[in-house]
Amino acid sequence: MQPISFLSDFGTDDEFVGVVHGVIARVEPQLRVIDVTHGVPAGDIRAGALALLRAVQYLPEGVALAVVDPGVGTGRKAIAAETSWGYFVGPDNGLLAPAVAMVGGAEMVVSLEDERFRVPSLGGATFDGRDVFAPAAAVLAAGQASIKDLGPVLEADAITPLLLPLVEVDAAGLRGEIWWLDKFGNAQSNISPADLEELGLKPGDEVRLVVGSIEHHLPWVATYGDVEPGKALLHTDSYGLVAIAAREGNAAADLNLSTGLHIEVRKPA
Amino acid sequence: MQPISFLSDFGTDDEFVGVVHGVIARVEPQLRVIDVTHGVPAGDIRAGALALLRAVQYLPEGVALAVVDPGVGTGRKAIAAETSWGYFVGPDNGLLAPAVAMVGGAEMVVSLEDERFRVPSLGGATFDGRDVFAPAAAVLAAGQASIKDLGPVLEADAITPLLLPLVEVDAAGLRGEIWWLDKFGNAQSNISPADLEELGLKPGDEVRLVVGSIEHHLPWVATYGDVEPGKALLHTDSYGLVAIAAREGNAAADLNLSTGLHIEVRKPA
Amino acid sequence: MQPISFLSDFGTDDEFVGVVHGVIARVEPQLRVIDVTHGVPAGDIRAGALALLRAVQYLPEGVALAVVDPGVGTGRKAIAAETSWGYFVGPDNGLLAPAVAMVGGAEMVVSLEDERFRVPSLGGATFDGRDVFAPAAAVLAAGQASIKDLGPVLEADAITPLLLPLVEVDAAGLRGEIWWLDKFGNAQSNISPADLEELGLKPGDEVRLVVGSIEHHLPWVATYGDVEPGKALLHTDSYGLVAIAAREGNAAADLNLSTGLHIEVRKPA
Repeated sequence: MQPISFLSDFGTDDEFVGVVHGVIARVEPQLRVIDVTHGVPAGDIRAGALALLRAVQYLPEGVALAVVDPGVGTGRKAIAAETSWGYFVGPDNGLLAPAVAMVGGAEMVVSLEDERFRVPSLGGATFDGRDVFAPAAAVLAAGQASIKDLGPVLEADAITPLLLPLVEVDAAGLRGEIWWLDKFGNAQSNISPADLEELGLKPGDEVRLVVGSIEHHLPWVATYGDVEPGKALLHTDSYGLVAIAAREGNAAADLNLSTGLHIEVRKPA
Repeated sequence: MQPISFLSDFGTDDEFVGVVHGVIARVEPQLRVIDVTHGVPAGDIRAGALALLRAVQYLPEGVALAVVDPGVGTGRKAIAAETSWGYFVGPDNGLLAPAVAMVGGAEMVVSLEDERFRVPSLGGATFDGRDVFAPAAAVLAAGQASIKDLGPVLEADAITPLLLPLVEVDAAGLRGEIWWLDKFGNAQSNISPADLEELGLKPGDEVRLVVGSIEHHLPWVATYGDVEPGKALLHTDSYGLVAIAAREGNAAADLNLSTGLHIEVRKPA
Repeated sequence: MQPISFLSDFGTDDEFVGVVHGVIARVEPQLRVIDVTHGVPAGDIRAGALALLRAVQYLPEGVALAVVDPGVGTGRKAIAAETSWGYFVGPDNGLLAPAVAMVGGAEMVVSLEDERFRVPSLGGATFDGRDVFAPAAAVLAAGQASIKDLGPVLEADAITPLLLPLVEVDAAGLRGEIWWLDKFGNAQSNISPADLEELGLKPGDEVRLVVGSIEHHLPWVATYGDVEPGKALLHTDSYGLVAIAAREGNAAADLNLSTGLHIEVRKPA
C-alpha cells in the first residue's frame, strides 16, 4: 500500500477533489492521499508541472496523481509512467514530464485504456480525473494491478515534453523569466545562482535587475534578515533558484511582477 | 469503522473545518474523513444539496456529514437518517433530501437530541457542526452508538424535501434552468438528453438555446473534441445532464451564464 | 503515534501545505495530520494565534504545528513547547503563546537547532515550515525523538508572549475590539458576557453599541431565532464571547465591521 499525492487545477469550491478521494477510497479504504495543491490556475499546464516538479522530492514515494487537463475530451492520451520514485498518473500533455525527468525518467509508460480500471461515466467523458486517473492511481497504490494491466505499453520516451524557457546570456547580461509567484509575493525565476556568478556577480553584490523598462538595484543576500524590513532583495530561495523577495513585504506587488514576465540582469560595470 | 464524507459551506479561511475534524478525531482517532467540499456558497442549501447529490454515488459507503445551516439557532431539527448507503447527518432543511432519495430513501430518521452525543458548547448554540453534527457522525462511523441512541425516532418520510425545478415543455420548446456552474465555466442544466430528444433533436444537431434575450445556436456533440478550440457546445456531461461548455474555454463567461438562470431550448423548425 | 494538527497562513493555491504533509509522511507514513486552517491572512500572527486558541480545545491531544512566520530568515527562534495537552511547534513570535497558556503553560521549551531533525534546504532558509517545523513535529508525533533531542532547552517561560487587548471600563461604558470576523460575517469581540453584566446589562436587554460614530441598538439574545430574519443581534457565541451577528444575514457587512475595529458598549441609562 503506497500513498497517493494528488495535484490538480480543480479548486475546492466544487466537489471534484472530494469525488476523486471517494473513488480512491472505494477502490481501497486504507489508501492515504496527500493533497499537494488544487489551486493550479485552471488549465495552466506549465504552472501545474512546475508545482509538481518543486514538490516531488518532498513527497513520499508512491503514486503522483496530477490532473491539469484542458484537453479532456480530445485525443490527448491518459497515461501512467513508472519511475524509480514511483508512478505518475495523468494526462499526457506535458504536465508530468518535468517531474518524471527530475526523478530519473520513465522506465515504462502505458496508455490508460483498459476499461476494467475505469469508472463508467454517467454521461460524457469530461471528468477523467474521476473516471480514468483516480481508479488507475488507486489500483497502482493498492497493488491491485501492475502498470501493464492498465493498457498498452508506449515507448518510455513517448511522454509529451514541456518546453521550459532557458536563461539567455549575451554581452549585456542575462535574460530570464519569472515562473512562479507565491502567495507571499515571492517571485521565483528560472535563473540559478551559478548564472549570476558567471556574470561576475557574487553574494553581497548589488544586482541591476531590469523589469519592464525599470532598472532596480537589489542586494543579493543570503536571507531576509540581511535587509531592512520592507526592502526588496535577491536571494537563493528554498528550491535553489534566484528569487525576488521583500523582507516582511510583497515583492510581486512592489515591483509589479507577474508569472511569465521576462526579466534581465545586467552585467556589473 | 466507516469513513465520513464531510460537506459544508464553512470555507477554509476560518478553522471551522479543522475543528470538526478535531471533534471527530477525539471520538475515535482512526476515523477517516473525506472533505467533499467546503466551498458551498454561504447558506445556499440548494447548492449544497446538489453537490451532495452529485457526489454521493462516488463516495464510500459510511456516513455523510453535511452542514449548510442558515437556520442554526432556530427551530429547525438536527437529524440523522439511515439508508441503504449509510447514514446522513445534518440539519433538516432540505440539504439531505435529494441525496437520501437518490440512494433509495430513509429507513429511519432520528432527531439529534441526546446530550450524551453532543459536545457541550462554551457559549451559545451557533456551531452545531462542531457540537451536534460532528459527534453524531463520529459515533455512528465508529460504531459507538446506534442511530436510535441519538434521539427520538421521527417518521422516516419526515425529512424536509427540497423543491428542485422541473423542465417545462410547451409547443415552442422547453424551459429549464442552470443549476451548477463549475470552476471551469461549465454550466450544468436540469435538462436531460431525453428531454432534447423528445423535442425532436438528436446528437449532432444544432440546438437553438435562448439565454436572456439572445438565441445561441450550439452544436449538440459527444465531447469537447468535436468542436474547434474556444467554441461553445451542448453535451451530456459526466453526470448525465445537458451542459453548456466551451472547448478549452469558459462557457459561463462567454454566454453570461449564472446559477439559477432560466434557459430555453427552441423546438427545431 | 499522535496526531498532528496543522495551522498556517500558507493558503492552498501554492503547494506549501502539500509539501509539509509530504515531509511528515516521509518521516512516518502512518501519521495523521488535521488541517486546522491554512487561511490565516499572510503574516498575521495575531489572527493565527487566535485561531489556534479557539481550536486547541477541540483538537486531539498530540502535536500542534503552527506556522505564521513573517520573520522567517531573521533571528526569531524556532521552538517546540511541551505542555499537558501535547507539543506546540512553530516560530517563537507570539503565535503559540495564547494556546500554550490556555492549556496550562509550557513545561519545557527547546530551540529547534539540531540539524539531524531538519530537512536540508536546496537553497536559502526561507521555508522553515518544510525544513524545520514539519520534521520536528513529525518526529515528536511519531515518538522518534524526545523534545530534548531537538535542540537546547530554553527557559519554560521564555515563549514570546502575544499582547491581546483588554476590555476597558469607565463611567460611560466599556471599550472592546472586534478580533475575528468569520466567513458568515459574525464578529467576535474580546468582550465577555460578564463584562456586559458588570455594566448592569442582562440577557434580553437592548444594548447600545457604538461602531465608529454610529450608535446601534441591538438586542442581547440567546440565539439567532430570538430575532426576525435579517436583524442584527448581540449574543454569546459558541466560544463564550460576545459577538455581533445577524440572523440569516451578514453582520459584518450590515454594520461595517472589520477585524481590529474598536467598539464601545454604553452603560444603560
